Amino acid sequence: MGYFQAAEKADHKLSKEDYKEQVPDLRIRLLQMQELLKRADFPVMVLISGVDGAGKGELVNRLNEWMDPRYLQTFAFGPKTDEECERPEFWRFWRSLPAKGQLGVYMGSWYSDPISLRLKGLINRKEWLHQLGRGCRFEKLLTDDGVLVIKIWMHLGKQDQIDRMEKLSSDPVTAWRVTDFEREHLRVYDRFRELASETLELTSRDNAPWQVVYGKDEHYREITIAEEICRQVEERLEGKGRCVSVDTLEKEAGEVFEEYDRKAPKLKKLDLSASLDKKQYKAELAFQQSRLNSLSREAWRRGISTVMALEGWDAAGKGGIIRRIVPAMDARHCRILPIAAPSSLEHRYHYLWRFWQHIPRAGNTTIFDRTWYGRVLVERIEGYAKGHEWKRAYKEICDFESQLVEHGIVLMKYWLHISKEEQLERFQLREVTPHKKFKITEEDYRNRERWDEYEEAVEDMVARTHQPDSPWLLIEGNDKRYARVKAITSYCDRLEAAIESNIINL
Amino acid sequence: MGYFQAAEKADHKLSKEDYKEQVPDLRIRLLQMQELLKRADFPVMVLISGVDGAGKGELVNRLNEWMDPRYLQTFAFGPKTDEECERPEFWRFWRSLPAKGQLGVYMGSWYSDPISLRLKGLINRKEWLHQLGRGCRFEKLLTDDGVLVIKIWMHLGKQDQIDRMEKLSSDPVTAWRVTDFEREHLRVYDRFRELASETLELTSRDNAPWQVVYGKDEHYREITIAEEICRQVEERLEGKGRCVSVDTLEKEAGEVFEEYDRKAPKLKKLDLSASLDKKQYKAELAFQQSRLNSLSREAWRRGISTVMALEGWDAAGKGGIIRRIVPAMDARHCRILPIAAPSSLEHRYHYLWRFWQHIPRAGNTTIFDRTWYGRVLVERIEGYAKGHEWKRAYKEICDFESQLVEHGIVLMKYWLHISKEEQLERFQLREVTPHKKFKITEEDYRNRERWDEYEEAVEDMVARTHQPDSPWLLIEGNDKRYARVKAITSYCDRLEAAIESNIINL
Repeated sequence: MGYFQAAEKADHKLSKEDYKEQVPDLRIRLLQMQELLKRADFPVMVLISGVDGAGKGELVNRLNEWMDPRYLQTFAFGPKTDEECERPEFWRFWRSLPAKGQLGVYMGSWYSDPISLRLKGLINRKEWLHQLGRGCRFEKLLTDDGVLVIKIWMHLGKQDQIDRMEKLSSDPVTAWRVTDFEREHLRVYDRFRELASETLELTSRDNAPWQVVYGKDEHYREITIAEEICRQVEERLEGKGRCVSVDTLEKEAGEVFEEYDRKAPKLKKLDLSASLDKKQYKAELAFQQSRLNSLSREAWRRGISTVMALEGWDAAGKGGIIRRIVPAMDARHCRILPIAAPSSLEHRYHYLWRFWQHIPRAGNTTIFDRTWYGRVLVERIEGYAKGHEWKRAYKEICDFESQLVEHGIVLMKYWLHISKEEQLERFQLREVTPHKKFKITEEDYRNRERWDEYEEAVEDMVARTHQPDSPWLLIEGNDKRYARVKAITSYCDRLEAAIESNIINL
Repeated sequence: MGYFQAAEKADHKLSKEDYKEQVPDLRIRLLQMQELLKRADFPVMVLISGVDGAGKGELVNRLNEWMDPRYLQTFAFGPKTDEECERPEFWRFWRSLPAKGQLGVYMGSWYSDPISLRLKGLINRKEWLHQLGRGCRFEKLLTDDGVLVIKIWMHLGKQDQIDRMEKLSSDPVTAWRVTDFEREHLRVYDRFRELASETLELTSRDNAPWQVVYGKDEHYREITIAEEICRQVEERLEGKGRCVSVDTLEKEAGEVFEEYDRKAPKLKKLDLSASLDKKQYKAELAFQQSRLNSLSREAWRRGISTVMALEGWDAAGKGGIIRRIVPAMDARHCRILPIAAPSSLEHRYHYLWRFWQHIPRAGNTTIFDRTWYGRVLVERIEGYAKGHEWKRAYKEICDFESQLVEHGIVLMKYWLHISKEEQLERFQLREVTPHKKFKITEEDYRNRERWDEYEEAVEDMVARTHQPDSPWLLIEGNDKRYARVKAITSYCDRLEAAIESNIINL
């Protein structure tokens, strides 16, 4: 509870005269800051949270008045739309991220729901802590990527809260503002204050600390908060301030890299001679496809979505697997996304941003042909990502995938493995096949030269992102028939399990 | 009814042997076509519509099997989500457009709802024709822009429909496929056939004709449709086929340009000496802002959205108006979009695409700081759009805006007018004001040199897009105070009228 005591005790006032004197300069400062920010290579997120009645709405409107509202986006998270309900909780936050050079103001945040659900007793303490942790990890991921996260908590003591409501109620013009909701909120004020205080303590970190501002006096709170935003952005623009140092980033990323699952499957242990004869293949494929047909229909009915991540060597046969899976499903509910190098727009966001945009609606399937693992494969090897960037990516990816799985999405992760010799044969075959020639470029041969480096990167990736609820499936790909049947069978098995557990949980 | 007679009479069959012989070559042809399309500068939209039971779903799945599904997107338009309901009808189609080089397959289309609503008697004939017309205009807009629209209608005669259902019902494995919905559909078959036939007649145009394919025999329908798609895309790739000739485009665009409203307001008639003294300004602004505050709150409660289009000379004071309007509204429901030159992604779509993406949700406001009118202003003057492109844009824009207005959106279109001398003074003032210096570039001075050309373009624009339900408001901007009050007052008046008519219609 200590979090609010200091704020409650001090005298937070600013006279009208002082306010009037300070505003003009502050506005110029804000505009200049915005101007510089436009060309900066980081985004700013300002979270405005706090007690009802502490003036959050008025403050956000004031910021829009003082700053150039064309370069400020305001987001409020009200009740979720059905499109939002069908995705993991954080989808709506990923939908609302500012790009580099932009400033976003958020009313409410990823902490609003945990506090309100806990206050109503709808989640237990463990789940509450879990949700707070998810918020912290989200912020860490953002700040590590250079986002400046400014968190303001507007506070109001109980007596001031009571005074405010009485004042509003007594004036017919403002009485409408005191709703039943607010009266109810006052009733649970003490419990709320305790929960909020604990939330702030748990989620105030060096990379994104909370600033508590006492909200009784509007002059004081407006000047204080605008100055705080200015100060933090200016410091960052000057390369100072709350920017995680490269040393720290490297140290933390190194620690992430150290941790891995020694029992994860290994490429070297695969038996690449595994094969199926044509007759077996035909029978088995037809059987699994018809199985997939009914399972995917049932999954759709139950709103169980699938995210399929397909990785593998060039010419390993990813396309062939997709062409065996998709026709067995309903094309209306299935989307295939070939992933190429990020576009200039995508470069202005965290590398996971573009994948979040394509999380499927309930019951639908998205197949990623190459994935977010590009971060720890091609970006690592070709040097597009710095050492600490790709090293910490393992943890970020695990967290991303946990969110999918927690939401009930079936997540399939395939690595299609072939030998170096097999690859060469396929390249050569492609070159003489009219409708495959286009698939072979100089780059494919260049990548081949770095086979060993890639192989190491793949082993690292599997060992660091193989999780019980989102395991890697390594597929022996030298025999295409074997690989296809294995891929589709394992998908059927997972779908079946998901449907069964859905039946039990209903 | 003539539309289906030929299809019903002919014998549409293909033996299994012929089918097996033809498929391998057809698949190679499809893959090669896809490969070339990837690098082409036009998108392809394939509409698969028709009678239930004619095999639409199977066909779409077959296309996904034969083609490379990574470069084929399938869209189905089921029940609208709430996010879709809150926007004009065609928002969901604009959301699902393929970019240049992409191929989209659509199950159902902008004609599905009109047919089904008319069949159920939920709309009258006039509304039905209106909706068909909107679909045709949408296709015209797309094909004029280079999109290849292929429309397939899969048909089945009544007796074949009955046979099919009896066959399905008699086998326990397939009986589930005959739903109550299908049985009901058979009951109204004759009426449906008549409506569909008329729809096809009315919406089959040279730029996007319907192809009727008889759907009884799966071998026949699959080969026929896949070949038809191939043929049309190949022809277009070779620069032949159903591509509107530049002569036609220019002729049609010339006709659009000929038509204009002689009574539309004119820049030359504005009295640029209009002004407000400081005292009047302060009082009037405060009054209108408080009015806007309650009106916008009421509009939000009623789900009335606003799209505000702000155009005007450089330094005319657009930013100043935005900064007077936004703080009077709730920042959470308001979004300001500064429009710059289109990005590389945006270039891959019709120029209206990026504006459609930002149509606000119910009750929200989007302020466009420069707009789709760039097509007939900067793109016309600087030659970024060809003659026929900007000339036909007037009509496309009117149609776009009618859709907003029909949906109940309040559409405000402002042209902020200042004299050439006033602009120069403002440029010079900006250069000596620290926080405004950045706003002045060489380009601003270059644009000034073409003042007369721009003025002509503005007069043309106003005369051609001034419509009773989406009028232009020309604002005398030499006096900033006058301009601001006029802009905000007119917005209040329009909001008030919209709220009143909403009350009456409820």
